[in-house]
Amino acid sequence: MLYVVGLGPGSKELMTEEARQVIENTHTIVGYATYVRLIEDMLEGKELVVTGMRGEIERCKKALDIAATGKDVAIISSGDAGIYGMAGLVLELAGKMDTHIDVKVIPGVTASIAAAAHLGAPLMNDFCHISLSDLMTPWDVITKRVDAAAKADFVICLYNPRSKGRPHHLRKALDIILKYKSPDTVVGIGKDVARPKEIDKVTTIKDLDETEINMTSIVIVGNKNTYVEDGRMITPRGYTL
Amino acid sequence: MLYVVGLGPGSKELMTEEARQVIENTHTIVGYATYVRLIEDMLEGKELVVTGMRGEIERCKKALDIAATGKDVAIISSGDAGIYGMAGLVLELAGKMDTHIDVKVIPGVTASIAAAAHLGAPLMNDFCHISLSDLMTPWDVITKRVDAAAKADFVICLYNPRSKGRPHHLRKALDIILKYKSPDTVVGIGKDVARPKEIDKVTTIKDLDETEINMTSIVIVGNKNTYVEDGRMITPRGYTL
Repeated sequence: MLYVVGLGPGSKELMTEEARQVIENTHTIVGYATYVRLIEDMLEGKELVVTGMRGEIERCKKALDIAATGKDVAIISSGDAGIYGMAGLVLELAGKMDTHIDVKVIPGVTASIAAAAHLGAPLMNDFCHISLSDLMTPWDVITKRVDAAAKADFVICLYNPRSKGRPHHLRKALDIILKYKSPDTVVGIGKDVARPKEIDKVTTIKDLDETEINMTSIVIVGNKNTYVEDGRMITPRGYTL
Repeated sequence: MLYVVGLGPGSKELMTEEARQVIENTHTIVGYATYVRLIEDMLEGKELVVTGMRGEIERCKKALDIAATGKDVAIISSGDAGIYGMAGLVLELAGKMDTHIDVKVIPGVTASIAAAAHLGAPLMNDFCHISLSDLMTPWDVITKRVDAAAKADFVICLYNPRSKGRPHHLRKALDIILKYKSPDTVVGIGKDVARPKEIDKVTTIKDLDETEINMTSIVIVGNKNTYVEDGRMITPRGYTL
């Protein structure tokens, strides 16, 4: 069996019981070095297959090859393995193999959910997830989605908002959002969520300092009803109070 | 301290460690009867405040009143408390009180993530969450969002897709989606996810039998690249394989 395990955003407190059990009971663990470090103290005596960044395809193939020998193996992702994680790639590659491999995806808490909880309650109404990385999705598809989401007043969770190689994507996305949303729209930023260096910040589109944002950040742009109370970002569900 | 705890979709295996610890260490638990039953065996010796359906405001007020006396109390939601759950309402009501109440939101696995893992990997590309309940969001806002999401080819997770009081909302939403997506677009249905009666089904928009769907179901409509392999719903991330 090949388990695809979402570890949650960082701390072991946000891991599910099922993820914990699978890691505990599986001898061979495959993962990117940063994720392996997140669960270092659970790995004593295990066989580790650690790969570098951008090694996603190689990593999944290795896990599938090990599973094909009849061994149990777990491949780990941070957050949820099915949201911009390893689950899709594992299933895509499994479909191309001659041997049938049993694959089980173990859900986890994704970054937006953890960031939202720490920021307040920004996701209480309809929302969307958009990755601003154009490594695998064309930029015009991304901008079309940002435009549609802003126009229909979704709360918008931006994954991969900004990196050294893509310093201007967040600004470009916010410029599109400003066609429809006010500059005073509340924005929440979660950086290194559920990790020791976590920073959570509530600001507005116009006051956002994009240089504070990097690849370990998630940006949540509110809808027109989102407000700030006692430092927290709240999107009303719509109850009459 | 008032903890707002997301229990995950149903089984204790999908609860986070932090949620488990908070429930274990908090004497007073407030919740809707169905959610209290999900964690029955964790509640021995605890003080329970159980309210009925549609009693959300009363439930949150009770929890806040208990916290105002200085006691620790946990109010529980299924899934994640910040996604169509209790977190927003608690924070909204806390803001209206004279006393300051410390509130901590404990994240959980929401239904779409658990359903996605059991269906395959449908959420590997940009997606959105839309609730089809118009109890608190006007129907024209909902349809506008469905239209925008379909037009920009998001994967669409429909919460509260159909109920006795709203038997036609899912059909109406699918009719809007069909303006932009093919009738052969893959659809995943998760019913009673992570509960004993769970049913997962992969179908298409044109073959979907809406009478199978109720309030404990979640419907995930794929994007134009979503496909089925070995009975599983997969949305490619975009890797060249």
